Amino acid sequence: MKDIEFIYKDALVSRDEVKETAGVLTSYIGHLSDISKVGKTAPYKIDYNEAGSSINLPFDSSILEMVNDAVKKVDVKNLKYIIVVGIGGSNLGTKAVYDSLRGALDPFFANKTPKIIFADTNSPKLLKDIRTVLEKNIEVSEEVLINIISKSGTTVETIANFEAIYAFLEERFEDIKKRVVVTTDHGSKLWEKAEKDGLEMLPIPQIVGGRYSVFSAVGLFPLALVGIDVTALLNGARVMHDKCVKEDVSENYALMSAVVLYLHNKKGITIHNSFFFNPELESLGKWYRQLMAESIGKRYTTDGKEVHTGITPIVSIGSTDLHSMVQLYLGGLKDKFTTFIYASGNSGKEAVPKNLVFPDLVEGIEGMEFAKIMDTIFSGVKESYKKGGLPFIEILFPQIDEYSLGQFLQFKMIEIMFLARLFEINAFDQPNVEDYKKEVRKILLSEK
Amino acid sequence: MKDIEFIYKDALVSRDEVKETAGVLTSYIGHLSDISKVGKTAPYKIDYNEAGSSINLPFDSSILEMVNDAVKKVDVKNLKYIIVVGIGGSNLGTKAVYDSLRGALDPFFANKTPKIIFADTNSPKLLKDIRTVLEKNIEVSEEVLINIISKSGTTVETIANFEAIYAFLEERFEDIKKRVVVTTDHGSKLWEKAEKDGLEMLPIPQIVGGRYSVFSAVGLFPLALVGIDVTALLNGARVMHDKCVKEDVSENYALMSAVVLYLHNKKGITIHNSFFFNPELESLGKWYRQLMAESIGKRYTTDGKEVHTGITPIVSIGSTDLHSMVQLYLGGLKDKFTTFIYASGNSGKEAVPKNLVFPDLVEGIEGMEFAKIMDTIFSGVKESYKKGGLPFIEILFPQIDEYSLGQFLQFKMIEIMFLARLFEINAFDQPNVEDYKKEVRKILLSEK
Repeated sequence: MKDIEFIYKDALVSRDEVKETAGVLTSYIGHLSDISKVGKTAPYKIDYNEAGSSINLPFDSSILEMVNDAVKKVDVKNLKYIIVVGIGGSNLGTKAVYDSLRGALDPFFANKTPKIIFADTNSPKLLKDIRTVLEKNIEVSEEVLINIISKSGTTVETIANFEAIYAFLEERFEDIKKRVVVTTDHGSKLWEKAEKDGLEMLPIPQIVGGRYSVFSAVGLFPLALVGIDVTALLNGARVMHDKCVKEDVSENYALMSAVVLYLHNKKGITIHNSFFFNPELESLGKWYRQLMAESIGKRYTTDGKEVHTGITPIVSIGSTDLHSMVQLYLGGLKDKFTTFIYASGNSGKEAVPKNLVFPDLVEGIEGMEFAKIMDTIFSGVKESYKKGGLPFIEILFPQIDEYSLGQFLQFKMIEIMFLARLFEINAFDQPNVEDYKKEVRKILLSEK
Repeated sequence: MKDIEFIYKDALVSRDEVKETAGVLTSYIGHLSDISKVGKTAPYKIDYNEAGSSINLPFDSSILEMVNDAVKKVDVKNLKYIIVVGIGGSNLGTKAVYDSLRGALDPFFANKTPKIIFADTNSPKLLKDIRTVLEKNIEVSEEVLINIISKSGTTVETIANFEAIYAFLEERFEDIKKRVVVTTDHGSKLWEKAEKDGLEMLPIPQIVGGRYSVFSAVGLFPLALVGIDVTALLNGARVMHDKCVKEDVSENYALMSAVVLYLHNKKGITIHNSFFFNPELESLGKWYRQLMAESIGKRYTTDGKEVHTGITPIVSIGSTDLHSMVQLYLGGLKDKFTTFIYASGNSGKEAVPKNLVFPDLVEGIEGMEFAKIMDTIFSGVKESYKKGGLPFIEILFPQIDEYSLGQFLQFKMIEIMFLARLFEINAFDQPNVEDYKKEVRKILLSEK
């Protein structure tokens, strides 16, 4: 298997700066590496004592076995739609992998089943449309499965969506209870209730935060169900994991990336632009956006010092956003660090024809492969960044497949753990989310 | 018709600051108002002498007539797919309106035709999928129409996509030439070639820039073709236009919004978060993202002073991003100004059922309408912003329909013209886009 490549020669940081900053993390790397040794001891039963141990999920064969068993119980041949009811960490990883592999036009291929439909927020329009899709296309209950995913089991949007979708399916199908799989923390209130009702259940290890949970049943079950090769996904993650617990910064992608992001942030660069040159990777960008925002945007350090730290993650798509955002990136405020992500491979042979309807409008494109056009644009953009003195790193996928995606996901989760350490903040909590939830509860109470 | 509302009480700016800054724009407002008087003189024939006159597109009845004539020539009943081949300003406005009205699940409703498929970037995966959709679902040429849209007529991605799609349709349909509509600048090379070939054509007024062209044939033709009420869209734009050429800042939404954005930027707030609480409005956010980024992200002032100015536009979706970005927004760096956009109306009666499968997990949601849940979350979020001292304004849609969308689009285009004036930069050019294009050309030449 070819691995993803990481290139940092245009990061615009000095060797000394990198070495010094990476040095700060030596003991933490040792610590992660120790956790990882626990994880890799046969029979891969991991000791989930601390949040960082989520990096060992890919080594936990008991999770994969459990997921495979759950998939076997489903009559996949007749299954048309999996409704993933979940929001934030409960669906972004799944959506990232699914969209990367299926592409934006997946819903147009009605016969390519099973398909995932994501029910995240409580949109009247979205709910109505899901209802209509199911009414029109589902004739027997075996064609649908609801996977409700909530770590706490008390997420408002998730419970509301589940109840509404369940209710309208229940009107049509007596055995709809058999078409539900509940993914939640072992021991949550939802878990207890689901157990009492005899529903199919999959546990999330309690210590694993939502945004680090893609390699638990949260991501693996729905992905395996639609036929995505989760074993390859986990293989990629394992290989990347081994790279990212090395002390040598020049070999450790996550470490180098974190150090470079940190150094630029110290110099006032407050935006991290993940610039994907394959449009099907946009949801992968949104997964990373959550990972970075929730982990790094913190009011207090772990020592309780008020800092209001943070890097704002943004996601761009090439070449689409060259016609939208790049004027700002090249001409505007120099407040961005860019990670370019590009897969030039598995492109097939799509090409411009040799005989054109409109010759002479664009020089030299006759017969050119689409992948080649994008390669050229990608190179041109990097050149313009260099000339503009804009710092960037590159992540190159050999192709977009499960193995590469597994590598990327693991790379980024460890990068964020390192980055949080450098900022001296907690990578695993999200205390300020409570701020608005508190206000929502107040309003609900005042209206009673 | 109910108009959209604009609320600025939580903008955290003083009356005096606003008054002083708005005063700077008095003569420019007078100027826009003068242009608008030209536009409103019967028979609505506009003098397109300067870029800003794009604000008069909604008054130009000759455009609507031309578009309606072109629509009449198409056998809409049999039409299944319109392939809009265009990128940046050539498709973002169309996609904004289309997605806002159709929603994310539109492709699941195969019978709801005609549908638009957007071909923007040169993705091998996207092209292959478009080819497959057309191969599987199109039997006669009347079922498909290609609308190629390029202002200059020389956009690489657009020409490449068009040639590839045309070529594989030509293999199957002899008369495919009749299934093409070319939208381009009157007199461009593409225009001349299309004319020679006898293709159907629609002109873009040369002075109107791509990102200001949604009310020209660029947006109106494909939208009208799928049955969207473009007359209502233009009506909304006209009403908003009249508001936005008023001198009184408290009545002029565009002026107030621009002034507030400018004042916060002067205080170091460099990110503008457009936070939409209806997920179907995400593409509308992406349209605005281009409008702001290309117009405001400038290296030089109109006087030639090097400034590297700019506000980075980001787009958030409620409640989805409450589970992704809001930790950063509430806890992280205070570098963002937020515009909340929300339509509470036209929600139907989607609701949580009264009897729950999982009672007691979330208090008080039994029987609650989805719109009510979102209203509550929206209010809670605003409260948490107030308590955190985070500045915001609100744009409230009475419902999501053509009229409201027309208002919003016009509001934002005029806002950006005002904002550029305050920054003393050109709102209508994008000189640095040339930077990467130059590099692309160099690479192509060196490989010859």
